Amino acid sequence: MLRFREAWAGDWPALWTLMEPVVRAGETYCWERDMDEEAARREWLPGPAGPDPTLTVFVALEPATDCVIATAQLHANRGGPGAHVANASFLVAAEAAGRGVGRALAGHVLAEAREGGYTAMQFNAVVQTNERAVALWTSLGFGIVGTVPRAFHHPVLGPTGLHIMHRFLEPAAPADGEG
Amino acid sequence: MLRFREAWAGDWPALWTLMEPVVRAGETYCWERDMDEEAARREWLPGPAGPDPTLTVFVALEPATDCVIATAQLHANRGGPGAHVANASFLVAAEAAGRGVGRALAGHVLAEAREGGYTAMQFNAVVQTNERAVALWTSLGFGIVGTVPRAFHHPVLGPTGLHIMHRFLEPAAPADGEG
Repeated sequence: MLRFREAWAGDWPALWTLMEPVVRAGETYCWERDMDEEAARREWLPGPAGPDPTLTVFVALEPATDCVIATAQLHANRGGPGAHVANASFLVAAEAAGRGVGRALAGHVLAEAREGGYTAMQFNAVVQTNERAVALWTSLGFGIVGTVPRAFHHPVLGPTGLHIMHRFLEPAAPADGEG
Repeated sequence: MLRFREAWAGDWPALWTLMEPVVRAGETYCWERDMDEEAARREWLPGPAGPDPTLTVFVALEPATDCVIATAQLHANRGGPGAHVANASFLVAAEAAGRGVGRALAGHVLAEAREGGYTAMQFNAVVQTNERAVALWTSLGFGIVGTVPRAFHHPVLGPTGLHIMHRFLEPAAPADGEG
């Protein structure tokens, strides 16, 4: 059983271990492949003084070791009249692949989004060739709103599309004693 | 004939005059309606030390007076493998509406994007009820990639969709002597 908690500054070395191979591969995120560690930290774990006050970063911990094996960002996709739609991003350790870690963390983040009052979640740029991700989001109730053609240059597969994916979030169940 | 140039810091008071009514109305941008002038400036004209090194801000000048009557932002919509797709945002003075100013400025920005090497332009959040904008972008060759349902709370019309709109940019014509 995975454990989830909010990330803190001391998690950064573990998060960079998850993030660096994804940055260098350049196959799934719109990040510069030569991004250095400091820029990566500003991107993923900017801390409370960061530019986005709605951002929360989560980690998933391996129960046996308490090691960070996955992480997610949750924040408002837009501001003002669009701030009720959440956006999230996920990174799973390569060695944890195929064990349902991403799915479990996504379930946690969807629940957190719902509890935070978001009424929907939107992904802006799911790489079309990232079939595992597309299948995971589809199985979790996301639909493809549209696909921006040739919007991503995959380093191996060449130009491919970016999906916008979306699902509504049903309201959080009231806690005992409420409602 | 309008004149276009890059914005400089001294344009800010004129830009805020354009921007403030749009912020306060809350009908077309995902901005907090109570955004103060300093936050607005960080949003529209952050200057060369801003967080996005790809950002260029343009102004359109009324020929008779040299007054700023419209402005646009142009920048990469995403980083790394997505940095070949431009994004742009536009503000036109209310008193200049209906005179083709937005269309002319859009033409300038599309040309600048093309010359800057972008191969497409994408809008991430065109408010569905903003029929004038949707019609303008459609007439300029943009298509609706998809519409995120109920992603925008219009203060008068209630929940409405946000269109993702997109067009490819043909390569810039070679300058004399090139190619």
